[in-house]
Amino acid sequence: MIQTINYDESKIFITKAYGASGSFIGGKTVEPIEIERYKPKADEVLIEILYCGVCHSDIHQVNNDWKNTIYPCVPGHEIIGKVIETGTEVSAFAINDIVGVGCMIDSCQNCKPCMDGEEQFCLGPVAQTMTYNGYFKPDGSGYNTFGGFSTHIVVKDSFVLRIPEKLKYSAAAPILCAGVTTYSPLKHWGIQSGDSVGIIGIGGLGHMGVMIAKAMGAKVTAITTSEEKRQAAHELGADAILISEDEKAMEALETTFDFLLCTIPDSFDINPYICLLKPRGTIVTVGLLGPYKSPTNNMEVAKFARSVSGSLIGGIAETQEVLDFCAEHDILPHVEMIEMKDINKAFDQIQNEDVRFRFVIDMKSLQD
Amino acid sequence: MIQTINYDESKIFITKAYGASGSFIGGKTVEPIEIERYKPKADEVLIEILYCGVCHSDIHQVNNDWKNTIYPCVPGHEIIGKVIETGTEVSAFAINDIVGVGCMIDSCQNCKPCMDGEEQFCLGPVAQTMTYNGYFKPDGSGYNTFGGFSTHIVVKDSFVLRIPEKLKYSAAAPILCAGVTTYSPLKHWGIQSGDSVGIIGIGGLGHMGVMIAKAMGAKVTAITTSEEKRQAAHELGADAILISEDEKAMEALETTFDFLLCTIPDSFDINPYICLLKPRGTIVTVGLLGPYKSPTNNMEVAKFARSVSGSLIGGIAETQEVLDFCAEHDILPHVEMIEMKDINKAFDQIQNEDVRFRFVIDMKSLQD
Repeated sequence: MIQTINYDESKIFITKAYGASGSFIGGKTVEPIEIERYKPKADEVLIEILYCGVCHSDIHQVNNDWKNTIYPCVPGHEIIGKVIETGTEVSAFAINDIVGVGCMIDSCQNCKPCMDGEEQFCLGPVAQTMTYNGYFKPDGSGYNTFGGFSTHIVVKDSFVLRIPEKLKYSAAAPILCAGVTTYSPLKHWGIQSGDSVGIIGIGGLGHMGVMIAKAMGAKVTAITTSEEKRQAAHELGADAILISEDEKAMEALETTFDFLLCTIPDSFDINPYICLLKPRGTIVTVGLLGPYKSPTNNMEVAKFARSVSGSLIGGIAETQEVLDFCAEHDILPHVEMIEMKDINKAFDQIQNEDVRFRFVIDMKSLQD
Repeated sequence: MIQTINYDESKIFITKAYGASGSFIGGKTVEPIEIERYKPKADEVLIEILYCGVCHSDIHQVNNDWKNTIYPCVPGHEIIGKVIETGTEVSAFAINDIVGVGCMIDSCQNCKPCMDGEEQFCLGPVAQTMTYNGYFKPDGSGYNTFGGFSTHIVVKDSFVLRIPEKLKYSAAAPILCAGVTTYSPLKHWGIQSGDSVGIIGIGGLGHMGVMIAKAMGAKVTAITTSEEKRQAAHELGADAILISEDEKAMEALETTFDFLLCTIPDSFDINPYICLLKPRGTIVTVGLLGPYKSPTNNMEVAKFARSVSGSLIGGIAETQEVLDFCAEHDILPHVEMIEMKDINKAFDQIQNEDVRFRFVIDMKSLQD
C-alpha cells in the first residue's frame, strides 16, 4: 500500500508505518503498512522518528469523523526525532539534532496569516499542509501526507521545531499539539497572574492546560465529569475541582471565571459553561471540531458581553515558544509509553478516557 | 390601573401612560392607562418627557417573549425630556435642562462591574434596575418600574444623561438604546480606521451601527436580506451592500471581515455569518436575546480562532460617550415621528420592517 508522488524514482525510499487503509469495515484501526517517502530537497531535513504522541484527533481522522480523510491514513502529529540528513540549504539544523514536528509541515508563506506567523490560518490557495492527511486543492485534487506513525519523515526546515535540552525527549511529544493547542488561546486571551481560569476536560489537552495556566500565574479550576480525576488534577497543580454534573456546584460558581478553556473532544452543550463566566469573560473550545449539541443561548452571552471562541493548534513560532515555555517552567506532559503494535488498544483506551494523560509511542518498536 | 409603591401618599402623583395590562388575549397592544409616580427624592430629578423612541425590545417585553414581563408594562427606554424638578442634593442638573434616560435607572453601585462603570453587568443582589419592567429579587418579589410611554419619569441623577445642544432633540432618543447598543461593542472590540466591518440587519440598531462604524473609520458593509434597503444603506454611508440570501455573494466574501455586528432581533442561524470573518475576527450579536436557530459549528469558529460574542446596551458613562460621539460626528438617528395613539400600528410596522429606521413618539400627543 504505497502512495506515489511526482518524484524522481531514485529519490523514493520505503518506510514502515501504521495506517488505516479505509478499505475495511468500521475503519477504526490502524495496521502495518509501507509508505513512500522521498529524500530531502535543499530546504528539507530527514528525521528518524523516536517518539510519537497519540492525539484524540488521530482517532477522529482514522474514523473519517470529519468527512475529509484521505486513505491510506498514517496518523501522528506529535513527533520527536533525530535529524539524520539535511538538504544542501539547511543551516538551522545539523545531523543528530533532536527536533520536533507538530501538526503542519508547510503553508503558502505569502498570505497575511503566514506573514504574521500564524500559518495555522493560511489563506493561500490550498491552506496549510497538515503533517498527515495532506491537502485538497479547490478542484478536489491534491496529495496525501503521512504522519508520525512511521519510522522517518521529511520536513521543510522552517516547520521543524527545536527541542530544548532540558525537556525529557521521551515525554515532550505532546507539547507539539496538546501543548500549543492549550498555550495559544491562554496566551492570546492574555491570561495573567491572579486570573480565574477553568480547564474543562482533564485529558491529553486538559492536563497540559492546567499546567500551563498555572505556570502563567492563574488560579486554576479543573472542570471534569469524573470524580476519579480529582486527585490527578490536584497533582497537576489545579487549585480547585468542579464536577460539571453537580448542578448546585456549577450554579454556585456562575459569573466567577475570567476564562474557560474547553477540551471536550465530542459534541456537548456549551450553555452551562457560559454561565460560569464573569462579565466580558471568554470560553474557548479547542477539542470539538463540529457543531455543539444545542444552539447557544445568546441571552447568557449578551447579557454579560461574554465571548464563545475556538482555537486550533498555533503557529510555528508559537509552537517553539511553548516548547521553550515548558522547558523554562519544568512542565512535562504526563505520558504512558506504548509500543507501536499496541496502538489500536490505545485508541480504545483514549475513547474510554483510560489514559493518564497521553500515550506516546516508542517508535523504536516499529523499527525492530 | 395603578401600582402602589411603599411611599408617603402625599408624594404620589398620577400620570398618563400607555401600557399593556397583560389581561387581554394576545397581549400585543398597549392602551391608555394611569400610573403612579412619586416626587423626587434628594438625589432624583423629575423629567417631563418630550420624546420617546420605540425599540423592538418594547414589543418583545409587551409580548412577554422573554417570560419575565411584569404587568402592567409601560415600555419606553429611549427618553428625551426636560428637567422640571430636582431633589435637594442634585447639583448636576437644573430646571429646563434637556436630558436623556436610557435602559437603566439604578444599580448596586458597589460590585466590580458598577465600579468599572459597566452598570449593565451589575452583580449586586438584584442586578441593575431597568427603566421599565422593574426588577426581581431572588425570592421572586421586587417592584415594577414604568418607562417612557408616559408624561413624566423620576430618575436618580447619576442615571440621567446630558443631551448635547448640537443634537436635534426630536431625533436623539434612539441614541440612548440603539446608539449605545451598537457603539459599545464597536468600541470594545477596537474598531479603527480601515477595518472591514459588516453590520447585519439594517433596522433601528443596524442603521446606527452603519453610521457609527463609518465615523470610526471602518469600511462598512451593510448586510441585509432586503434588496429594498440598498439605497437607504448607501445613504447611511455604507461602502457596500451584501444580500445575505445570495449564497454566491456570501461565499465570495468568506474570511474578509474583521468584525461583524449582528442586529437581527429574532432567532437565526449564525453559521453562514461566521464564515465571513477573517482569522481572529469577531461577530457580536446584539439583537437576539435567546437561543440561535441551530447549534454553532465550532469547526468554523476554531479553525480561524474566530469569536462569537454578544452585547447588551452599555454603561452610563458609555451612554454619555455615544451621545457626545454622535454630536461630534453629526450622527442623528433617522426617525419617523408618531403620536402616542398610533403606537400599536407602529409595533406592527416594526415587526414588518416597515420603518426607516426608528419610530419616535412625540410625547406632547399624550399630554393633550
